[in-house]
Amino acid sequence: VLSYPAMQARDREPAGPPTILVHAGAGPMGSELREHGQEAIDVLGEILRAAGAQLDSGAAAQAVVMAAVEGMEDCGLFNAGYGAALCSDGSVELSAAVMRGSDRAAGGVAGLHVVRHPIHAAAAVLESGQVLMIGEHAERLALAGGAERWANSDFVTERQRARLIRGAEGPPEDRGTVGAVCLDAHGHLAAGTSTGGINGQPPGRVGDSPLIGAGTWADDRVAVSCTGDGEAFIRVGVARWIASQVAHGVPLQTAAREALDDVGSLDGTGGLIALDRTGQLALPFSTEAMPRGIWQAGRSPDVQLT
Amino acid sequence: VLSYPAMQARDREPAGPPTILVHAGAGPMGSELREHGQEAIDVLGEILRAAGAQLDSGAAAQAVVMAAVEGMEDCGLFNAGYGAALCSDGSVELSAAVMRGSDRAAGGVAGLHVVRHPIHAAAAVLESGQVLMIGEHAERLALAGGAERWANSDFVTERQRARLIRGAEGPPEDRGTVGAVCLDAHGHLAAGTSTGGINGQPPGRVGDSPLIGAGTWADDRVAVSCTGDGEAFIRVGVARWIASQVAHGVPLQTAAREALDDVGSLDGTGGLIALDRTGQLALPFSTEAMPRGIWQAGRSPDVQLT
Repeated sequence: VLSYPAMQARDREPAGPPTILVHAGAGPMGSELREHGQEAIDVLGEILRAAGAQLDSGAAAQAVVMAAVEGMEDCGLFNAGYGAALCSDGSVELSAAVMRGSDRAAGGVAGLHVVRHPIHAAAAVLESGQVLMIGEHAERLALAGGAERWANSDFVTERQRARLIRGAEGPPEDRGTVGAVCLDAHGHLAAGTSTGGINGQPPGRVGDSPLIGAGTWADDRVAVSCTGDGEAFIRVGVARWIASQVAHGVPLQTAAREALDDVGSLDGTGGLIALDRTGQLALPFSTEAMPRGIWQAGRSPDVQLT
Repeated sequence: VLSYPAMQARDREPAGPPTILVHAGAGPMGSELREHGQEAIDVLGEILRAAGAQLDSGAAAQAVVMAAVEGMEDCGLFNAGYGAALCSDGSVELSAAVMRGSDRAAGGVAGLHVVRHPIHAAAAVLESGQVLMIGEHAERLALAGGAERWANSDFVTERQRARLIRGAEGPPEDRGTVGAVCLDAHGHLAAGTSTGGINGQPPGRVGDSPLIGAGTWADDRVAVSCTGDGEAFIRVGVARWIASQVAHGVPLQTAAREALDDVGSLDGTGGLIALDRTGQLALPFSTEAMPRGIWQAGRSPDVQLT
């Protein structure tokens, strides 16, 4: 463990190269990934290339995270925005969070039904001075701020309807929460996460994604976005724990792995992406698959499923 | 900072004496505390005596925390349950959380309107295997589990109605979120928090109280319950940060003070109560007042307002 003076010296090191990591959910290698794996790879590659162009032109980490998450919310392959998992009553309930490392400004939303891009609603909360808003009041705030309105049925895909009908009888499925963490050219970090929760979940259930410190975190040292068994991730306080460990000098990959092991000790599985100011990366997962990608300045996007 | 072997040795030390700490909100010395200070002292003293009797007879930390929070939700003097602060539309929106250190089982609720004791709803969520539930679905779960139903108007007191009318024009008022942390005779910890939020808050706003790792935390080393500017407490991840610091060997009082200083760096004020397995206590606050009390085995309750 680093001494405090060593930690402070580390904080004065030059920042690493502009970087973005994305994930599209840790889970089994479900039918969606088996059938549409190449499509998922292509979508994540496109998102990373666009993010890289933004970063090359000096965009702020939060803006890059927002665009990447919005792209994953739009594509219909993942469990966020369009194509999100259905609750037990057939409705879609969406949640998301975004956090900016430079000033720890943060916004989260849960229980959304009619905002096309939940990550936009999270940003509207961040801008409002609140940190967490739920339900129709969060929607009203987001829509007043210019977020696009969809009917709840607009989010529903045939794939998710079939999954809900198959329910627990069906084969294990990919889970598909999405997230991004970014280090920009100014040395600032941001993190964002968006999800539809769990196939067949009770309406009103909230997982770790919209909760600052559980599924999403960014400060001036580290940014984290999680995916997996949300209840276990909340009970570990995964994202805040990793940031605390890094503050105490634990290397990022060690901190990320230990947090995931702790999730395992509560019978949870999942994964996460984490990035520190010096450019260290961690993308561990304890499931079969976690679609994920890396872009770092000067390199091509690298996307993997398993 | 302690080395890991030293931390592990510390974890093997005998547990401290059975202890409970309670708080009834950090804030200005408002009119309620000036007029009803003695009543608040008496109520907290009664709650501590009852908790002490429970602990003396071997009750588990979670049960003791539940009873203490329930008592504070009932009394009408504090901003939780009966007598909670009103939202801008005149409604009462309640939230609460409870966490058990031994297995980190946790439950939180937000956006409740009709459950008399929000802490009971939090416990129902803990038992359900969920961790966070919001709105009417959380209410349905709690009521099905035997929690008592109240009409929303049953929570409204004349004092809170007058405060809402005075609004920002009025004098600064005590804030009154309540919480308890406990170490039982078996060496196990628990924490619970309950609140009505902020006078005049927008409906749908959620603060730190119901969020595991923000306003409420318990593991096998430390239990924490917070009160204050919820948005700043979430952005610091106060409770999880304190637990992380203690895991790294930082003394509890130092960890608690540093977390509150960090809240201050985000222009937030508030306070917290924290208790570790060895019996160390911390009850810091950065406001004029924080009604709070301590009971430790073999001693009389000690209650203070400022």
